[in-house]
Amino acid sequence: MQNLSVLLFDTFETLDVFGPVEIFGILTDKYIVEFYSLHGGVVKNAHGVKILTQPLSDISNGTDIFLIPGGFGTRDEVHNLELLTNIKSISEKSKYVLTVCTGSALLAKKGLLDGKNATSNKRSFKWVVSQGEKVNWNKQARWVVDGKYYTSAGVSAGMDMALGFIADIHGIEFARQIAFRIEYNWQENKESDNFSEQ
Amino acid sequence: MQNLSVLLFDTFETLDVFGPVEIFGILTDKYIVEFYSLHGGVVKNAHGVKILTQPLSDISNGTDIFLIPGGFGTRDEVHNLELLTNIKSISEKSKYVLTVCTGSALLAKKGLLDGKNATSNKRSFKWVVSQGEKVNWNKQARWVVDGKYYTSAGVSAGMDMALGFIADIHGIEFARQIAFRIEYNWQENKESDNFSEQ
Repeated sequence: MQNLSVLLFDTFETLDVFGPVEIFGILTDKYIVEFYSLHGGVVKNAHGVKILTQPLSDISNGTDIFLIPGGFGTRDEVHNLELLTNIKSISEKSKYVLTVCTGSALLAKKGLLDGKNATSNKRSFKWVVSQGEKVNWNKQARWVVDGKYYTSAGVSAGMDMALGFIADIHGIEFARQIAFRIEYNWQENKESDNFSEQ
Repeated sequence: MQNLSVLLFDTFETLDVFGPVEIFGILTDKYIVEFYSLHGGVVKNAHGVKILTQPLSDISNGTDIFLIPGGFGTRDEVHNLELLTNIKSISEKSKYVLTVCTGSALLAKKGLLDGKNATSNKRSFKWVVSQGEKVNWNKQARWVVDGKYYTSAGVSAGMDMALGFIADIHGIEFARQIAFRIEYNWQENKESDNFSEQ
């Protein structure tokens, strides 16, 4: 079993989190999904969601897959040094790090993506780029893989990336079966995004 | 402002809930999203989600939009008379009732869809049909509208239906803007589902 450890913070984007959680979550024989926040407890967002979380200190030695969502909360969190220090340490010790939407800004801010290829939300692209100017930002991609780092475009792109990750680990036919099971029209091509011209 | 009141029960399907919640949730000037369960408190599912809810008694006079997800939990809940009685009463008093996936089985079981057109998850279609044999079940549709009842196919179809509902209320151009904002390739055509042959 592998752990998918999901970082939450106030004003996270709902679907950034729960799109990938659906995809990993249904694979109950392969993945255990757990939710974390800086100090644990209830995390809320602007969509009325209130989720129970564990403290990040519980994964201070890293995890198998560390998932970082985006959302308006990232605008504040790029100034939260305690959170960024934890993100850096956990990311360095984890096997894989996946970000959705502006979640990549939180990695970029601490230099974790320097010299790497990455993408992000297309509407907030300029702001994200300003958080890490040494990153090779790719505005055309639906998602980007560089070593252990997977970064996706905005919101819904997180589902395409999660299926892409599943394909890389378990094979594309298996990923297609998962998409079929959740009746999702998976965009398999990570190179091209219908939403890049924003 | 309109209320979107989301019903949760143990072992609800993650994306059935949070796909539509993303779409209504970002419209913070139009919709307030709230989560309910039979007796309130924490509701868990098999994907590791633990979410805080209010008791259904808080909406005993109905709501604007009542959203009922599916998931394996529905296999138990079709035998939960207290929950079904609440679903029936709240649905009758609400302006709109939306179901995702096997959520339509919970309406069908109490006869709320008798004589109406409806759809459901394609993999569990036979079981859902057996919960309401007087319903005009449509296996080809991505989602179905019959009066105030909107029923969708499995999991991801809930997002297409939610955007379809937004289109019916606010116009299709507005719904397209929402899809664009969440970088979602919306399937606008409700009549045809790529997953109907299961």
